[in-house]
Amino acid sequence: MTYCVAVKIKAGMVFLSDSRTNAGLDQISSFRKMIVYEKAGDRFMCLLSAGNLSISQSVREILQVEQLDDHEGGEPITIWNARSMFDAARVLGSAVRHVWHRDGEALQRAGVDFNVSMILGGQIRGEGMRLFQVYSAGNFIEATAETPFFQIGESKYGKPVLDRVINPDTGLDEAAKCALVSMDSTLKSNLSVGLPLDMVVYEADKLATDKVVCIDDNNPYFRMVRNSWGQRLREVFDSLEDPTWDDAHTEVPLLTRADRHGPVKKITNPREKLI
Amino acid sequence: MTYCVAVKIKAGMVFLSDSRTNAGLDQISSFRKMIVYEKAGDRFMCLLSAGNLSISQSVREILQVEQLDDHEGGEPITIWNARSMFDAARVLGSAVRHVWHRDGEALQRAGVDFNVSMILGGQIRGEGMRLFQVYSAGNFIEATAETPFFQIGESKYGKPVLDRVINPDTGLDEAAKCALVSMDSTLKSNLSVGLPLDMVVYEADKLATDKVVCIDDNNPYFRMVRNSWGQRLREVFDSLEDPTWDDAHTEVPLLTRADRHGPVKKITNPREKLI
Repeated sequence: MTYCVAVKIKAGMVFLSDSRTNAGLDQISSFRKMIVYEKAGDRFMCLLSAGNLSISQSVREILQVEQLDDHEGGEPITIWNARSMFDAARVLGSAVRHVWHRDGEALQRAGVDFNVSMILGGQIRGEGMRLFQVYSAGNFIEATAETPFFQIGESKYGKPVLDRVINPDTGLDEAAKCALVSMDSTLKSNLSVGLPLDMVVYEADKLATDKVVCIDDNNPYFRMVRNSWGQRLREVFDSLEDPTWDDAHTEVPLLTRADRHGPVKKITNPREKLI
Repeated sequence: MTYCVAVKIKAGMVFLSDSRTNAGLDQISSFRKMIVYEKAGDRFMCLLSAGNLSISQSVREILQVEQLDDHEGGEPITIWNARSMFDAARVLGSAVRHVWHRDGEALQRAGVDFNVSMILGGQIRGEGMRLFQVYSAGNFIEATAETPFFQIGESKYGKPVLDRVINPDTGLDEAAKCALVSMDSTLKSNLSVGLPLDMVVYEADKLATDKVVCIDDNNPYFRMVRNSWGQRLREVFDSLEDPTWDDAHTEVPLLTRADRHGPVKKITNPREKLI
């Protein structure tokens, strides 16, 4: 599997991906799942991919040459001349469909789902930053202020901390830290996600970035995050009062007389009815 | 969906379940997913269920009367006379297969998976506590010291904190707190899991329990956990140093010269090759 996350906040965007690819547990490899498209001063885009590796690699190859007809009679739209990120996402959706037309039927015959999901975010001169999630059918959705992040792959382990921290006013470095903590939770609980990580941080309106880093297990910052987060999480956990079953001696009783539902059904003999 | 978790440690066992059942997002109901079987002084068992509600309700109904042949010529084995939790898990597996024989074909015709998963834990006089996870095929696995908990349903959000905290020497109240924090993370990130919760805590070798509680949104202890955990998690998050991109001014640089992999591929024009 894979875990990729992208965050769009007012200050900029953060992209983070792992690099583990597996076909069964006995065939584990490392493939980069992130690619950056940049014409400095004109456009910056970052593409993250999850799902079937043969599909996502084909999509990335085709994306470089994919063209969409411009119905207004101009030259065909590519990711390099698109005037909006929306059009760039359409070109990416078209590349996904291109691969589906080429490989979909043969994959289906082999019993393999046409499974790919991608995140495309960035900024094109003349508009604000935009962030899209593109599905296997080539359709896509856009992140908004209410939901300023997208995840693909093994997304559940790392979602709680994003839910708690990320909002449009989160700072850019803080968002990068949050993405790394989210990745740490995923690495901790799921073998199919692995180091090294690729991270790109983009500052709003720069139309280029040099904040690009590959993080392996020797990276001092990520080691600090992993150790400190785990240890302090444990301290917070220990600092919470344990539940007590004698409600006379605590201000936060676990058992209350106000319980509207009553305790769970207890069956005490073979002849007792459930209801 | 559902989230249920059961923990077996030396000091005892903790069982926790939510109560949300949904058939699509527009059909949400509350059903209890836990049931306790207890013959005080002889046996204590707790059953948690996830998956198709019609299947799990049928399994629970049948479990009361399910009998397995005793190949040594004794009377048939039921959950009420089984001499080991292993045999009780076999009776439960048999009840699951019973429902499959009755409903499996018709469900398949209707395009519905025979989807049920259950956790059965407890203790029968004469042996130690045991904890089993039973699958749709009626087969099952047992928790061991290396993996002292099972989760069914929406398990991923709440797994990281269990991975970090639970081990065989964890205290019983602490394990109950950990299960509640795990549930809180799941509630926070997944609408298909909802209050009220049922929790049962069993002390080793008691062969009965009265530590049974139904927790709704007015429960003072769970409110404290939810508020304090969220707030202190946030404080821990804030206390971690943000990543900095200027590696001269920090002891934990994000960018390092020792990076073996190099940065992610940056494509800067339409003619550039990916590889």
